[in-house]
Amino acid sequence: MSTIKIAVFPGSFDPVTKGHEAIVKRALPLFDKIIIAIGHNSQKDKYFSLEQRKRFLEKTFSHLPNVEIAIFEGLTVDFCKRVSAQFILRGLRSVSDFEFEKNIAQNNRMLKPEIETVFLLTDLEYNAITSTIVRDIHKHGGDIKKLVPDAIASEI
Amino acid sequence: MSTIKIAVFPGSFDPVTKGHEAIVKRALPLFDKIIIAIGHNSQKDKYFSLEQRKRFLEKTFSHLPNVEIAIFEGLTVDFCKRVSAQFILRGLRSVSDFEFEKNIAQNNRMLKPEIETVFLLTDLEYNAITSTIVRDIHKHGGDIKKLVPDAIASEI
Amino acid sequence: MSTIKIAVFPGSFDPVTKGHEAIVKRALPLFDKIIIAIGHNSQKDKYFSLEQRKRFLEKTFSHLPNVEIAIFEGLTVDFCKRVSAQFILRGLRSVSDFEFEKNIAQNNRMLKPEIETVFLLTDLEYNAITSTIVRDIHKHGGDIKKLVPDAIASEI
Amino acid sequence: MSTIKIAVFPGSFDPVTKGHEAIVKRALPLFDKIIIAIGHNSQKDKYFSLEQRKRFLEKTFSHLPNVEIAIFEGLTVDFCKRVSAQFILRGLRSVSDFEFEKNIAQNNRMLKPEIETVFLLTDLEYNAITSTIVRDIHKHGGDIKKLVPDAIASEI
Amino acid sequence: MSTIKIAVFPGSFDPVTKGHEAIVKRALPLFDKIIIAIGHNSQKDKYFSLEQRKRFLEKTFSHLPNVEIAIFEGLTVDFCKRVSAQFILRGLRSVSDFEFEKNIAQNNRMLKPEIETVFLLTDLEYNAITSTIVRDIHKHGGDIKKLVPDAIASEI
Amino acid sequence: MSTIKIAVFPGSFDPVTKGHEAIVKRALPLFDKIIIAIGHNSQKDKYFSLEQRKRFLEKTFSHLPNVEIAIFEGLTVDFCKRVSAQFILRGLRSVSDFEFEKNIAQNNRMLKPEIETVFLLTDLEYNAITSTIVRDIHKHGGDIKKLVPDAIASEI
Repeated sequence: MSTIKIAVFPGSFDPVTKGHEAIVKRALPLFDKIIIAIGHNSQKDKYFSLEQRKRFLEKTFSHLPNVEIAIFEGLTVDFCKRVSAQFILRGLRSVSDFEFEKNIAQNNRMLKPEIETVFLLTDLEYNAITSTIVRDIHKHGGDIKKLVPDAIASEI
Repeated sequence: MSTIKIAVFPGSFDPVTKGHEAIVKRALPLFDKIIIAIGHNSQKDKYFSLEQRKRFLEKTFSHLPNVEIAIFEGLTVDFCKRVSAQFILRGLRSVSDFEFEKNIAQNNRMLKPEIETVFLLTDLEYNAITSTIVRDIHKHGGDIKKLVPDAIASEI
Repeated sequence: MSTIKIAVFPGSFDPVTKGHEAIVKRALPLFDKIIIAIGHNSQKDKYFSLEQRKRFLEKTFSHLPNVEIAIFEGLTVDFCKRVSAQFILRGLRSVSDFEFEKNIAQNNRMLKPEIETVFLLTDLEYNAITSTIVRDIHKHGGDIKKLVPDAIASEI
Repeated sequence: MSTIKIAVFPGSFDPVTKGHEAIVKRALPLFDKIIIAIGHNSQKDKYFSLEQRKRFLEKTFSHLPNVEIAIFEGLTVDFCKRVSAQFILRGLRSVSDFEFEKNIAQNNRMLKPEIETVFLLTDLEYNAITSTIVRDIHKHGGDIKKLVPDAIASEI
Repeated sequence: MSTIKIAVFPGSFDPVTKGHEAIVKRALPLFDKIIIAIGHNSQKDKYFSLEQRKRFLEKTFSHLPNVEIAIFEGLTVDFCKRVSAQFILRGLRSVSDFEFEKNIAQNNRMLKPEIETVFLLTDLEYNAITSTIVRDIHKHGGDIKKLVPDAIASEI
Repeated sequence: MSTIKIAVFPGSFDPVTKGHEAIVKRALPLFDKIIIAIGHNSQKDKYFSLEQRKRFLEKTFSHLPNVEIAIFEGLTVDFCKRVSAQFILRGLRSVSDFEFEKNIAQNNRMLKPEIETVFLLTDLEYNAITSTIVRDIHKHGGDIKKLVPDAIASEI
């Protein structure tokens, strides 16, 4: 009998993008459950509120029974232990992503060697989408419909 | 009869450097007009004021009839449409520049596919000059004469 | 009266890809003529013969009157002088492309400062296509229809 | 009832290194079976023979029942289909690895979208080990014991 | 008779890490004296106070007679002149480090060509340790004992 | 009484460039002796013969009493031991250089931890010069005078 495979997909999701959506969907065959975990930091201002970010994620993934949305404070690896996740899921877009993620993942291994970080590559067509750019276009009244999940494109 | 080729060279120019100056001069044979466009963001503090940054640019390029200086708010592609520019001009110095510029350019293509971003490589001798470094040296009373255009070196 | 703007797009085109095709089409508004120049090196074996590579390019661009196909030996800048081109056109895909192209372009500037290298970014959807990968898939009987220009997809 | 998860770990393994060994072991909790697949190319000379490379892998992984060793020719995705693998497993060490792997993975997705490439980061301590460097040290009579799996260190 | 070789190792050391400690120790055979110089910027908030950061460095290096700790404001090259240092010492971890350090070093050469920046590579095992990550783990109550010098691990 | 500091500067120097020349000169204040060591590999064809490469180096550095020229086969660290060098000197130009050099240096540390690799950054003006590019221009009859040391520019 094999263990249930649980992955945490951590981020600030300010807001969730089509890139995030695709990573989660493509990772579903690997895991029994994926917990999308919004890292909450009460000292940092965000563009969308914690409630908005959570709602955007819920609308995006409501039809997928193996996907849960959660909010956490503190270290990602501590949250993983609390929810019994053995894996952290991350998407890789670019070289600078890679170096940043590499540092985080290596330190997470130092803290909890039993938690493995698993990487998928972002789809080419979503390769230039970052939450920062989505916010910047949104703030200036530009059209972000092609950048965010269809489920939230009409209300964002 | 061919269309007039107009390029926008956007940036914050805080301050304009010898690197910026060289890119504009080398791009002149490609375009009929280059509009150097200072992106203005009322929420972000700058080291030099908007007026100073504009004056530095005017002094640097006053002898070049095909170069104009402008200020804009909002998205670069929206400004391009307003001034009928078909091209965005950017300089590339380094790998981290490249990844940053790539994201911006791909999103600009998504927003307005008819506007093309054209890249020139920064001259080797200006390859380590960034506005950030110029400000840092200036703030500590260091000599920035070799880093900014000759036209403004004596007054900055 | 302005000078006619001529760009050389050099490469080995073994074979031409959808990425090459898109760069040339997007660069057309910048130049009056683009000469696609196959660099011939009699000492290096190629996967497709010089004749095949030339024919693939001719079929791909036959409907574009401002595009010419040529073969050259020797230094790219020397070929540019022979055909009176003031510009070299290159596409950029990745960080490793960027570093390679930067070295070439800086040395070309050292040899002939009057010739400017102009870069466009490869379309995201063609970002992972290289001639090397196309050859590798072709050699093993894989399907390369989505990787090469439609005009040659049926015969390659 | 869930499908059996099979991953192919392709490479030339000339020779297998401690880095390869660690990736396979760490990936075991993710998959039900990992097939280490030696890509055979009759036209390319290798430092160790196909038989040696296979034996090194067999000795390294003989105690792991979920790991199989295989040899294949042709495209990796075609081999995956033959062995019903839904996943390709790859290790990432460096920025240049990342760009290379990204191209390969994106083209594999183009060829067979149903096969997902999953990446783990190489352990820091094995980060500078490449088969190329192992061969180079071996060829000059240097000591490679710390670079290859313990199971083969005495005989290589 | 040769000149005494003095190197400045500048940084904010917020806090000193095992990576910093290793670089200084490995650089000792190169220089007669190494001055670890905490760059003080009264406008920037730090996680550990200037006094704490200085004390951590003193405890870490107290047993090494050729290492001194200092605090400076202003440009690094100006501090080097004040203490008659001919060298700046820096550690390199990653590609993004490299590009950042390259810009700084080239500008320092422009300001004071007689001061040479000397780089050592960070030990592999400390390759993912940055002061930023140490602070982040510390803030969330994680264990940083493996990340900072043994001499301060118990009190930090 | 301090030990004599000896550095080995290894390479194939096919041919020596202005970049190599500048690194050696700038490294002189760090070391008591620099041995420029041509790595000889009887199986690899070179553009310039071993004798030519040695003579180019001798002419370039003949006026510097602390610089010696040598030829070696085998591992660089073994040569260092033979000549009692405690340091390996390397120049860094680019991100791809950095990743390559990092692997080599880390493996050299694994083989002989007592030998330290010391890096200087290539001068900006020589940043795009590689021996490969020099050979390519030379082969096609281009002018390489600005790329190689003045001492050999007339005869190469």
